[in-house]
Amino acid sequence: MSTTDIIIGEVVGTALLILLGGGVCAAVTLKKSKAQNAGWLAITFGWGFAVLTAAYVSAGVSGAHLNPAVTIGLAVTGGTPWDQVPIYIGSQLVGAMIGAALVWVAYYGQFQAHMAEVSLEEAKAGKAGPVLGIFSTGPEVRNAAMNLATEIIGTFVLLIAILTQGLNGSGQGLGTLGVLITALVVVSIGLSLGGPTGYAINPARDLGPRIVHALLPLKNKGGSDWGYAWVPVVGPVIGAVLAGLLYNVAFA
Amino acid sequence: MSTTDIIIGEVVGTALLILLGGGVCAAVTLKKSKAQNAGWLAITFGWGFAVLTAAYVSAGVSGAHLNPAVTIGLAVTGGTPWDQVPIYIGSQLVGAMIGAALVWVAYYGQFQAHMAEVSLEEAKAGKAGPVLGIFSTGPEVRNAAMNLATEIIGTFVLLIAILTQGLNGSGQGLGTLGVLITALVVVSIGLSLGGPTGYAINPARDLGPRIVHALLPLKNKGGSDWGYAWVPVVGPVIGAVLAGLLYNVAFA
Amino acid sequence: MSTTDIIIGEVVGTALLILLGGGVCAAVTLKKSKAQNAGWLAITFGWGFAVLTAAYVSAGVSGAHLNPAVTIGLAVTGGTPWDQVPIYIGSQLVGAMIGAALVWVAYYGQFQAHMAEVSLEEAKAGKAGPVLGIFSTGPEVRNAAMNLATEIIGTFVLLIAILTQGLNGSGQGLGTLGVLITALVVVSIGLSLGGPTGYAINPARDLGPRIVHALLPLKNKGGSDWGYAWVPVVGPVIGAVLAGLLYNVAFA
Amino acid sequence: MSTTDIIIGEVVGTALLILLGGGVCAAVTLKKSKAQNAGWLAITFGWGFAVLTAAYVSAGVSGAHLNPAVTIGLAVTGGTPWDQVPIYIGSQLVGAMIGAALVWVAYYGQFQAHMAEVSLEEAKAGKAGPVLGIFSTGPEVRNAAMNLATEIIGTFVLLIAILTQGLNGSGQGLGTLGVLITALVVVSIGLSLGGPTGYAINPARDLGPRIVHALLPLKNKGGSDWGYAWVPVVGPVIGAVLAGLLYNVAFA
Repeated sequence: MSTTDIIIGEVVGTALLILLGGGVCAAVTLKKSKAQNAGWLAITFGWGFAVLTAAYVSAGVSGAHLNPAVTIGLAVTGGTPWDQVPIYIGSQLVGAMIGAALVWVAYYGQFQAHMAEVSLEEAKAGKAGPVLGIFSTGPEVRNAAMNLATEIIGTFVLLIAILTQGLNGSGQGLGTLGVLITALVVVSIGLSLGGPTGYAINPARDLGPRIVHALLPLKNKGGSDWGYAWVPVVGPVIGAVLAGLLYNVAFA
Repeated sequence: MSTTDIIIGEVVGTALLILLGGGVCAAVTLKKSKAQNAGWLAITFGWGFAVLTAAYVSAGVSGAHLNPAVTIGLAVTGGTPWDQVPIYIGSQLVGAMIGAALVWVAYYGQFQAHMAEVSLEEAKAGKAGPVLGIFSTGPEVRNAAMNLATEIIGTFVLLIAILTQGLNGSGQGLGTLGVLITALVVVSIGLSLGGPTGYAINPARDLGPRIVHALLPLKNKGGSDWGYAWVPVVGPVIGAVLAGLLYNVAFA
Repeated sequence: MSTTDIIIGEVVGTALLILLGGGVCAAVTLKKSKAQNAGWLAITFGWGFAVLTAAYVSAGVSGAHLNPAVTIGLAVTGGTPWDQVPIYIGSQLVGAMIGAALVWVAYYGQFQAHMAEVSLEEAKAGKAGPVLGIFSTGPEVRNAAMNLATEIIGTFVLLIAILTQGLNGSGQGLGTLGVLITALVVVSIGLSLGGPTGYAINPARDLGPRIVHALLPLKNKGGSDWGYAWVPVVGPVIGAVLAGLLYNVAFA
Repeated sequence: MSTTDIIIGEVVGTALLILLGGGVCAAVTLKKSKAQNAGWLAITFGWGFAVLTAAYVSAGVSGAHLNPAVTIGLAVTGGTPWDQVPIYIGSQLVGAMIGAALVWVAYYGQFQAHMAEVSLEEAKAGKAGPVLGIFSTGPEVRNAAMNLATEIIGTFVLLIAILTQGLNGSGQGLGTLGVLITALVVVSIGLSLGGPTGYAINPARDLGPRIVHALLPLKNKGGSDWGYAWVPVVGPVIGAVLAGLLYNVAFA
């Protein structure tokens, strides 16, 4: 693929991923949203179908990585040249930031209504702000080793599914059916492994929106929890490398 | 496609879309319905599978636009001749009105039971009536610019997914798998971007049923909120044109 | 297809349909079930995936009608010879009765626990019994004309989707993807048109289990509501004929 | 397939199946999980998509049995040589134990938080422990004959769907679409037949995690309910043999 194709596909695709993924979190979290309290199934299907939409749009252009962990896993197994890796990851991070900003635009009125009711004291207390969860993930039980383990396992599952998809007769490339299956794998990871940390399983998905959260002029938004920010970056990278190594040893 | 095929496909298809989409809103809203209070997931899957059913029936006949925004987006990118656009849109509007009337027939007993308990004062107060939401969309926070932005973003996502579907190897035409994916994209938009305005993302889906709401002899039905009616018409058209332009520049 | 194939496919397929469809109603209704009160989404996906499973098993054997309305609709449009219609319908009715009996076997302990708490007076009052809904459908607002209209509309949607499926390039026969789409169309009908009457949309699905309900030795089971039994038989037949006629006029 | 392929595919696949299937039970059950109380739909879709992910990864390697009942059913119908059966089953059991251990790792903090609040008396009472349901199944109404019947019926449905999948034109092997359909059949069985016993329908899925539950150093975990352990082993085997015999007689 040309560098231009990679940039277009990954910026547009990752922006769609985060617009829709962050969007469902906004929909379920914010006051004055028709979907408020729609529950965990809504969030997990919302993120899965965000992958579906974003990958469907970008599969034919950039291969729909949309995730530095996917790019690294494919590089480890020889599917993506290492010199394209920085282009992929940079585009994904830019796309993720655009997507997070669009969530803010689409839910502007809901953010206004919601933040107006958050007390300044609560927000200043230094904990994760009341709407940070719309942008980035956070753990229910805070423990770096445990949280890292959960992100490693979740990303490992994602990558082993993506890396082996060429094996079962669906041919080269992702294909429309491959997009659908990958999306449902993401629903699966959300339902089954999302409980402890909110399943970042994608460094760009977590870091890009966290930067946007830090920049946005949201009243009483609270901190961006930078102390945790490395876990959903490092964990997915480790998980992707482990999946790539297992693939090389056992499946290739 | 022949004019006859367009008319048959779009009238029947859009009638099915609104029968099933309005139907799930009736099912979840009205008293004496087995599905009352089934929740946001039911509504979003209901609308998505309404698209699935309607598009599956009409894909081979008219190409299953079922939405003036889709027709305009395809015209902008050269997929549909401009002189067919009025035929498509007129058929969609007629179909949407037929569908909305059929919702009333299918849920006649539920409408009777529900409206009997609405006080005349409440209905006369001039606000959106208690069952308008079964027919047309309305915003949670009323602000034309914000609501327009949300509808533009939602429709943009729909159109960019439809316009790029030829790129990932699934060939010409919608195809059965394309129908399924498009339906799940609509579930995605509902889950992720439906919170603020109820995601019209289709001028015919909103305007046709609003006209039927104004005409139907429903006791205590309240106003049809004509002040808002232009937003879910103009927003989707702008979103479709923007998606078409991006496609022409970046993906074509 | 040979008569033997029709009988095997339709008996086994319809038994699976009712075992799984009645099963989800038992799961959601009965005490001492892990799924009690799982809600309307569970019921509609449960019935849809019951169609998926049953049609997947029988599609290659008998064409997976599993529903007299489907058989009649296909006969009206020339897809099934009229002299095979009685074989199909008889097999479907036998299969539906077997399936309903298997629900009773699978949920035997739950039926025992549930019925033990139903008072004899309540059961003798002559209304629909407390577990009839596991076997057959019933209206929320009892009015023959209205209930008939709802069943006609629901079955019309099912049949027009089945009859047009050959048009969008998926070739002859149902195929695996056609099975999936048809199953999701049934979820759609359930979500959108199931509220008033519980969407029989299939005479065998309603009549077969109602006969089994009348025969089973369930303590305090109450009446089988025979006064309503003709509606979910006649309505679907009318809906199927109307869909067949529309298909012949507009789509063929 | 080579013995190595069988071992790799079945160990990795069954580990993924139990990691994701047990994971959703942990997610819904444990305190300090974002998914706590997400409900029965989350559990049934979670297990179904666990099958999807696990089968997608292993289909091209070992054929994705992932279940001794599937292996036995395929052996009865001639699809798998009998001398490979012990290799399949042994690998499945090892994989299931690995998967169950990984659930414990991924939800370590949640297990700690949850078990800290379980009183020792409650746990010592000898009943099934408070988190055994994350590992293995158990009946709502305890009666060996009834529970066995439910497991036989559920597994029969799974196997007849798997055995007949070659009949409807989707060709040899599971294929990507076959993986999807099989996963939705498992959702169907969960929704419709899971109420009484929790649908083991897979001896390895139940026995492997039960052994891990017995071995894990979980405070106040209670007993592993070994008195019930034979039912979810014997029932699925009987169901698989019955499905194989029906297939041989009626469908082959």
